[in-house]
Amino acid sequence: MPHPLRRLLLGHPLPTHAEVHERLTKMKALAIFASDALSSVAYGPEEILLALMIVGTAALHLSVPIAIAIAVLLAVVTTSYHQTVHGYPSGGGAYVVAHENLGRWLGLVAGSALLIDYVLTVAVSIAAGAAAITSAVPELASHKVALCVAAILVIAWANLRGVRESGTVFALPTYAFIGLFLLLLGVGFTRMLSGSLAPVPPPAQAAHIIHPATALSLFIILRAFASGCATLTGVEAISNGVQAFHRPEARNAGKTLVAMAVLLGVMLLGTTVLARAMDVQPAAHETVISQIARAVLGGGPLYYALQAATALILVLAANTSFAGFPRLSAILARDGFLPRQLTNRGDRLVFANGILALALLASLLVVLFEGQTHRLIPLYAVGVFLSFTLSQAGMVRHWAKERGRGWALRSLVNGLGGAVTGVVLLIVVTTKFVHGAWVVCLLIPAAVAVLHAISRHYDSVAKQLSLNGISPEGADERAWQGPPKVVVPISGIHRGTLAALRFARSLSDDVRAVTVAVNPEASASLQAKWREWAPHVPLVVVESPYRSIMDPLLDFLHQTDAREPERGLAVVVLPEFITASWWQHLLHNQTALLLKTLLVYRRRQPGEASRVVINVPFHLEH
Amino acid sequence: MPHPLRRLLLGHPLPTHAEVHERLTKMKALAIFASDALSSVAYGPEEILLALMIVGTAALHLSVPIAIAIAVLLAVVTTSYHQTVHGYPSGGGAYVVAHENLGRWLGLVAGSALLIDYVLTVAVSIAAGAAAITSAVPELASHKVALCVAAILVIAWANLRGVRESGTVFALPTYAFIGLFLLLLGVGFTRMLSGSLAPVPPPAQAAHIIHPATALSLFIILRAFASGCATLTGVEAISNGVQAFHRPEARNAGKTLVAMAVLLGVMLLGTTVLARAMDVQPAAHETVISQIARAVLGGGPLYYALQAATALILVLAANTSFAGFPRLSAILARDGFLPRQLTNRGDRLVFANGILALALLASLLVVLFEGQTHRLIPLYAVGVFLSFTLSQAGMVRHWAKERGRGWALRSLVNGLGGAVTGVVLLIVVTTKFVHGAWVVCLLIPAAVAVLHAISRHYDSVAKQLSLNGISPEGADERAWQGPPKVVVPISGIHRGTLAALRFARSLSDDVRAVTVAVNPEASASLQAKWREWAPHVPLVVVESPYRSIMDPLLDFLHQTDAREPERGLAVVVLPEFITASWWQHLLHNQTALLLKTLLVYRRRQPGEASRVVINVPFHLEH
Repeated sequence: MPHPLRRLLLGHPLPTHAEVHERLTKMKALAIFASDALSSVAYGPEEILLALMIVGTAALHLSVPIAIAIAVLLAVVTTSYHQTVHGYPSGGGAYVVAHENLGRWLGLVAGSALLIDYVLTVAVSIAAGAAAITSAVPELASHKVALCVAAILVIAWANLRGVRESGTVFALPTYAFIGLFLLLLGVGFTRMLSGSLAPVPPPAQAAHIIHPATALSLFIILRAFASGCATLTGVEAISNGVQAFHRPEARNAGKTLVAMAVLLGVMLLGTTVLARAMDVQPAAHETVISQIARAVLGGGPLYYALQAATALILVLAANTSFAGFPRLSAILARDGFLPRQLTNRGDRLVFANGILALALLASLLVVLFEGQTHRLIPLYAVGVFLSFTLSQAGMVRHWAKERGRGWALRSLVNGLGGAVTGVVLLIVVTTKFVHGAWVVCLLIPAAVAVLHAISRHYDSVAKQLSLNGISPEGADERAWQGPPKVVVPISGIHRGTLAALRFARSLSDDVRAVTVAVNPEASASLQAKWREWAPHVPLVVVESPYRSIMDPLLDFLHQTDAREPERGLAVVVLPEFITASWWQHLLHNQTALLLKTLLVYRRRQPGEASRVVINVPFHLEH
Repeated sequence: MPHPLRRLLLGHPLPTHAEVHERLTKMKALAIFASDALSSVAYGPEEILLALMIVGTAALHLSVPIAIAIAVLLAVVTTSYHQTVHGYPSGGGAYVVAHENLGRWLGLVAGSALLIDYVLTVAVSIAAGAAAITSAVPELASHKVALCVAAILVIAWANLRGVRESGTVFALPTYAFIGLFLLLLGVGFTRMLSGSLAPVPPPAQAAHIIHPATALSLFIILRAFASGCATLTGVEAISNGVQAFHRPEARNAGKTLVAMAVLLGVMLLGTTVLARAMDVQPAAHETVISQIARAVLGGGPLYYALQAATALILVLAANTSFAGFPRLSAILARDGFLPRQLTNRGDRLVFANGILALALLASLLVVLFEGQTHRLIPLYAVGVFLSFTLSQAGMVRHWAKERGRGWALRSLVNGLGGAVTGVVLLIVVTTKFVHGAWVVCLLIPAAVAVLHAISRHYDSVAKQLSLNGISPEGADERAWQGPPKVVVPISGIHRGTLAALRFARSLSDDVRAVTVAVNPEASASLQAKWREWAPHVPLVVVESPYRSIMDPLLDFLHQTDAREPERGLAVVVLPEFITASWWQHLLHNQTALLLKTLLVYRRRQPGEASRVVINVPFHLEH
C-alpha cells in the first residue's frame, strides 16, 4: 500500500516503547471483559425457545426449568474460573493452562477449540447484532448478510489502527445495555405482578422449525438445554486478563467475575420468565428480546435505545475476539505451531495478520450461514465447553502439582467444574451433532493436525539449519571457489538481453549464452546479429526437433556443470521484464518462470548442491 | 507434470515435420465441416416453438412460415459464402476477411465475435447433446451439468493428444445422423400423407415459459424467427477449410457447401412441418426431436440410435470449436492481439493453451447456465450474425479492390447477403436483448478493448527493447564496470545464511551483511556469533525503533548505492528456502518475498537503473 493511503487508513506508526499497560478499575474492567458474556443473553434464551418449538408451543413452559439449570451451570463455571483467576494471576487462557498441565496434545486441542471459538464469537455476535437491528428496522432484513460483513470489516479496520481497549469507550454501551436491560426486567416484572402484562400475539411468520409430528422427549429437552448453554460463552474472558486489574489483581478480577456472573444469571432468568409470562414465541424476523421490549416498553425511544445498545454490546463482544484471536495466534506462532508471520507486530503495535485472518474467516462463516444466528449456534457450544473442560482439568493438575494451602479442596472444586462442563460437552455434541456440531468435531482434529504439522516442520528446519556438526573453518571451505560459470539462455537479441549479458559479465569471465533453435532461419539470423552485438560472449545453439525449449536447455546446463565439477553448478542469468501494470505481467516471462521453476524446485538428491537463478530486471515503462 | 504420466495421457511427442495436410474427398469433407451446421437442427426448430409458446399453443402454427423464412435466409447466406470460398481459397475466416478489407477495428470486432461464438458453440452443442441423451434416458436428467462438463473435458483431452480431423472417424456418426434423420422424415411424411400419424399428447411438464397474458405481436414473431436463426450456426465452417479439399479446392468446397445447405434446409423444414402435423409442444424434460422420433419410429432401437447419433454429432460440433478456437487464438496472438504463449505448439503439435482456455470458458458457461440450451441460445446468434455481416461486408470490398471478372455482380451478391444478415443481426439484438443478448453486446466491446490493449502493450515493448539508437560499442560500455557491490540482509546466522554468504563472496570482494536490530539482546548475540562464523564479511547493524524491517534496509541500500555511484546499484543476495511441499512454502520466505517485491517492483524514475536481487536457494528436506 502506498504510504499516504496507509497513513490515512491506519494512522502514524507507533514506536515499540509506546506500548503501555493500562490498569483498569473494576467498573471499567467489567465493561471491557463482560461484553462477550453479557451479550450472550441476546441469543441464549431465544435458542431455548427455538429448540422447544420443534414440538410445538405447548413445550415452551419447559424453558423456565431449563434456564434455571443453565443458571446453576453458570454458578459452577464461575466458581471454577474464580479459582483459575487466583491460580494464574498472569493470565490463564485455556491453551496456557492445558499446555502447561496436560501436555502438548491437549494444549493443542484447547488452542484449536479457542481459535475456532474466536471466529464463531465474531460470527454469532455480529449476526445477533444484525438481528437486533433488523428487528427494530425490518426494512433492513434483506441486507442482513451485507450488514454483517460490513460490520466485521469496520471492526477489523478499527483493530488494524489499534483500538485501545480503553475502559471509557467500552463503558458507555455496556452500562447502557445493562441499565436498559435491567429497566426492561424491572418494568416487566412490576407489570407482571400487577397483572397488566398482556400476552404477545403469535408472530405473523413463525420461525420455520415446527415439526408437529415430533413428540417431546428427554433428547429434545437436553437439546434445548444444550442450545441455551450458548449463554455461557465469554464467561472465561476475565481469566485471560487478570493483569489488567489494579492490585491486588487476582482479588479484583475475582470480584468482577462474580459480579458479571450474577448480572448474567439475572438477565437469563428474567428474560426467560418474562417470555413465558407473555407467551412469546420465536419469530422469523424479530428476536425474542425485541418482542418482549416492544410489548413492555412500548415501541418508543426506550425500545429503540435497548435495541441499539444490544447491537452495540454485540459489536463489542465481536471486538473482544479481535483482541483475543491475534494474541492467541501470536502465542501459538511463538511456540512454533502457527506461521511465524503471525508474531509480527505492525506499525501500530497490532498483530495485523491475525486480525485479517479472523475478519476473513468470520465473514466467510456469516456468508455461508446467511447471517442466521440460530444456524451458527450448534457449532459454537462445542468449542466453548471443550475449552472449559480442558481448562478445569488443567487446573486440577495445577493445584496437585503446587500443593499450596488448601490444594485438595481447590482440586476438588475445579474437578467438579470440569466434570460438569464435560458432561455438558457430551450433551452438546450428542444433541446438536446432526445440526452442525459435527462440523466442529471435524474441524478441531483437523486444526490440531495442522498445528502439529507446522510445529514438526519448524523443528525439522531448525535441525537442518543448525550449525552443529560444522566448524567455522569448514563453513568457509568453498567460499573461494572463484567466479561462477554463468549461462544466459536467450531467445533473441534486444535491450533486455544486453542488460542480462552486461550483468553476467560483471560477475564472471566465464559467461556463455545458449539459445534453442526451433526455427532454423530465425536462429541463423540471430547468430549473425550476435556476432555484431555480443562478440565477447560465445553463443551456443542447441537443436530442438520436438520444439521443446526446456529439455535441450536442461541438457546443456548438465554438460556445463560436468565441466570442472569442482567449480559447482552453473549460475543461470535470465532477463526478467518488470511491467508497469499487473495484467501486462501475464504477457511476459512465462518461459523464464517455467525454466526457473524447473531449475530451482525440481526434486533433488539429498546433499546435491543448489543452482542459483538470477533474474536481471528490465523495466518496461507502459 | 511428471513425464511418465504426461506420456500416458498425451502420448509421445511429435516432431515438427510430422505435420501433414490431409486432403479430403467431398464425402469426408462434408462429414468434418458439416457437423456444426447440421447438428444445429437438434435445437433450432425447438427454439422457434419455445419462442411461440409464450403466447400459448395456438401460436405454434406460425412455426412453419418462420422456418420457411429461415430456409430462405439460409439460401442467401450459402450463396454469399459460396462466393467467399472462391474469393479466399486459402481460407477466409471472418477475422481474416474483415481484418484485410475493413481494417484493424472491424477485424478485431469480427475476431472477438468469433472467439465468443466458439465458446458458445461448445456450450450449446454439449448442452443440446446432453438433452438428447437425457430425453432418451430421463434418469440422467439430474446429472446434466456434470455430464456436460465431463464431455467438455473428454473432448479437450482428446484435442490435447491431437485428434486428427480424420474424415473416417467423423464420417460414421455424421452419416449415421443424416441417414437416420432422413429416415425419420421419410417415415414421418409417409405416415402423415397416409393419415396414420397420431398427435403427440401434450407433455406432463411443459417447458416453463407460458405467459398466457401475452398477446401475439410482430415482436414475438420476430423473436421466434431470431431464435430459429440459431439453425444457421456453423454454415461458415467450410469457408475456413478450403485448403483441405482436393483440387480444384474452391470448386469442390463450393459444391460441398451447397450440398450441406440443402440437407440442412430439408431437415429444418421437415422437422418443423412434422412437429406441427403431430401437435408437438416443447417439454421441460424431452426435446422436440425426441418426441417426434419416439412417435414416428416407436420407442425401439431406431429411436435410440437416432438419439445417440444426435448426441454424437453435437459432440463433433463442439469438437470443431476445439480446432477453430485455438487456431484463431494463435492467429490473433501472432498478430500481437493475444498473449504470445497461445502461439506455442506443444509436444503433440497442438495449441495446448488455447484448448485449455476454451475448455475452461465453455465449462464455466455450462455451469452458469445450468446446461440449458434454451438459456444459452440468446447469447449465441448475436456473434454469429455479426461475423456473417462483417465477413460479407469485407467480401464486397474484396471484389471491388480486385476488379476481377464479374466483380460488380459478386459485390452485389455479397452486399445483399451482408444487408440481409445485418438486418437479422438487428432483429436478434432487439428481440433477444433482455433475454441474454445484452451479455454479448457488452462482451464484444470488452473483448475488443482487451485485444487492443494487448496489442498496444506489445508494440510499446518492441519499441523499448529495440536496438535502434544504440550501437554495439555503446551497448558494451558498462560491461566492464567490475564486480558488483553486494549486500546480504540477514536475520540470524545458520546454514542458509552461510550458503548465501559463500555465493556472495564468489561474485565479488565487496560484500557486506546487514541486519535490522529490533531486539537489542538478540542483535548483540548475533554480532558475537558473527565474529566467530563470518569474520571476513563486515556486518552492519541498523536500528529500527518502529520494528519495521523494510525501511531501515532500504535506507542502508540507498547509502551503499551512493558510495561509488559509477559502480551501479548494489546487488542484494537473499537466502531462499525451497521447501519439500507447497504448503511449507507459506511458512517461509515472507520477509524475503516482501523485500524483493519492494526492491524490484517499486515505481522507478524513467532511465533509473534496476537493482538485481539474487535468491540463493537452500533446500529443506522435509
